[in-house]
Amino acid sequence: MARNKHPEETVRLILDTAIPLFMKNGYEHTSIQDITDHLGGLSKGAIYHHFKSKEDLLAAVTDRITSESNQMLARIRDRSDLTGIEKLQAMFRESVCRPVQNDIFTIAPDFHKNPQLLFSLLHDITENVVPDYILPIIQEGIEDGTIKTDYPQQLAELILLAANLWMNPMIFESSVEETCAKIMIFRQMMQGFGLNIIDDTIIKRLQELTSIYQKHR
Amino acid sequence: MARNKHPEETVRLILDTAIPLFMKNGYEHTSIQDITDHLGGLSKGAIYHHFKSKEDLLAAVTDRITSESNQMLARIRDRSDLTGIEKLQAMFRESVCRPVQNDIFTIAPDFHKNPQLLFSLLHDITENVVPDYILPIIQEGIEDGTIKTDYPQQLAELILLAANLWMNPMIFESSVEETCAKIMIFRQMMQGFGLNIIDDTIIKRLQELTSIYQKHR
Repeated sequence: MARNKHPEETVRLILDTAIPLFMKNGYEHTSIQDITDHLGGLSKGAIYHHFKSKEDLLAAVTDRITSESNQMLARIRDRSDLTGIEKLQAMFRESVCRPVQNDIFTIAPDFHKNPQLLFSLLHDITENVVPDYILPIIQEGIEDGTIKTDYPQQLAELILLAANLWMNPMIFESSVEETCAKIMIFRQMMQGFGLNIIDDTIIKRLQELTSIYQKHR
Repeated sequence: MARNKHPEETVRLILDTAIPLFMKNGYEHTSIQDITDHLGGLSKGAIYHHFKSKEDLLAAVTDRITSESNQMLARIRDRSDLTGIEKLQAMFRESVCRPVQNDIFTIAPDFHKNPQLLFSLLHDITENVVPDYILPIIQEGIEDGTIKTDYPQQLAELILLAANLWMNPMIFESSVEETCAKIMIFRQMMQGFGLNIIDDTIIKRLQELTSIYQKHR
């Protein structure tokens, strides 16, 4: 095999090939051989040179998905033209509206068979997403007077867990109708905290994602 | 071995012996031999006659703990002297005030090593506790005018997940101070739903349980 002068390009090629296969056929039903078959000349050895195992490759896929989301959150956090509450709303709107969500809801990883992955995701929320992105936005809102709370960290945690765990049909099975009811209760909860940010765009998009999930499960 | 005429008594004796050992030393650090040593004459064979394995015994222990809680919830649900919202408050107060909670917070099962158990508990909430106990209470509150919501099932789910998952220091590590902040945000959420039921008794008891957990971890 020729010496690879651009390993980062190989890694990108492998991820670009693996992601749609995982999305389409599911992680469990995609073998390293399947990925090789779509890599146009790269060998299995080339994959194993960069990823020790299929689990290792999945971790890289997860990192890429999370990193896109984190870059989006960082961009909103660092804007200077929005108040705290406007940033919080932008964050919700962009999170649900990102096109990659269609792919995620199409793969719909089966968390019932993957409780460890669920646990990691939950802890990623409280240990990374809250302190790095949401808490600074809420604190900015407290300073500019658009958000009122004595407990910004706990407010951030409760909101994100409700949105990412409870409202996620991949984790708690729910029909499009039940998801609508969840969104209404979530919006009421947000209003109870003085956060009137769940608008029609967000609601329609959440319904759309649930119906994509229902079609592909 | 003499034929056992009262198998249910033997099962009760085994559970009465196993529970405090699991509580005190932890499930991982309690062997079937340890339980036999405390059983006063009963043999290992007697345990294995009733429980195929230590996991099987743990399931019976979990059932007993859940069944006490479910009996308490059923008693409150079926009272005729309380309004819907009073039942919801009684349910919260009795849940946290039950003495068995001290034992549970002392064992403090390590959910980080037990994501499957966590997943089962989450689904037990939405599949059993909500429909059998909480939803009927909320519906009664809607009928008697003490609770107002268009989405009783989703309201019940969100409340229980916040209380049992997010506010549980065994799942989301938190100091006594952080737990207090969570309780305040939870109370504010409940007030946003028109449910002014988290009183000082409940708050003090939750702080007490967190400090029991912190002492024994």
